[in-house]
Amino acid sequence: MLKKVVLSLSLAASSALFAPAAMADETNPVIVHRQAIYKVASGHMGGLKSILALKDGPKENLSYHADSLVAAFQHLGKAFPEGSDKGETKAKANIWTDRAKFDEAGKKAYAAALAMAEAAKTGDQAASLGAFKTLGGTCKACHDDFKKD
Amino acid sequence: MLKKVVLSLSLAASSALFAPAAMADETNPVIVHRQAIYKVASGHMGGLKSILALKDGPKENLSYHADSLVAAFQHLGKAFPEGSDKGETKAKANIWTDRAKFDEAGKKAYAAALAMAEAAKTGDQAASLGAFKTLGGTCKACHDDFKKD
Repeated sequence: MLKKVVLSLSLAASSALFAPAAMADETNPVIVHRQAIYKVASGHMGGLKSILALKDGPKENLSYHADSLVAAFQHLGKAFPEGSDKGETKAKANIWTDRAKFDEAGKKAYAAALAMAEAAKTGDQAASLGAFKTLGGTCKACHDDFKKD
Repeated sequence: MLKKVVLSLSLAASSALFAPAAMADETNPVIVHRQAIYKVASGHMGGLKSILALKDGPKENLSYHADSLVAAFQHLGKAFPEGSDKGETKAKANIWTDRAKFDEAGKKAYAAALAMAEAAKTGDQAASLGAFKTLGGTCKACHDDFKKD
């Protein structure tokens, strides 16, 4: 019992350290996992920004961020199963009621991520910046339609 | 000129979407990149939490999160160069004035991430949970000493 309490406290401390407020109390693992992947994706977008939108960014990390974003998007493709609309989530209900439209938006974002990774491989800064802008646009479009404010 | 303005607006929109408030105005690419990697690491810790600390988590993603965390930590190892203490950063000055101690804390965290990835490979939930707790402890220890509140 004591072990359980200690473990519980320790995990609570971990949550406080790493989880944003919005997900602190959520216990549906599918939702917590989904939000975690979005955080990963957002982090890599920040990494791409540091390289492509700021002066003298750490270019050697371009493909790391682009490839990791592709991997995160692959996981997002399976992150909205039936029933995962209940809980502390910013996912709008139309993800489940208008799935074809949501899947289409997801495909566009994924294609843009793949294009970003391809551009990153060439090391061409201008092409990479263009791909980054397109990618950001697909993120925004999906958020506009399917994410609560 | 118009193109520049449009680009600037587009990037500002991207930042607003993806960057936390703390880094919104920071233009030192090394700091923005570093914060992005920490966001990635935090996301993967959330992913591990969803699998190891909640009921019926998406176990099939355990190694994805653990391996990605190792990759993020590898990038963090190069994320505190001289001069990157200036700006909107939560990094304490002693990272640069007591580098040996900081490097030691980093090594402990990296070793814990490697152990987490090894435990994840075995699929053993109890061992993975133990590794996750140890890992969280190394994160907290480093934050306590080297991160501003």
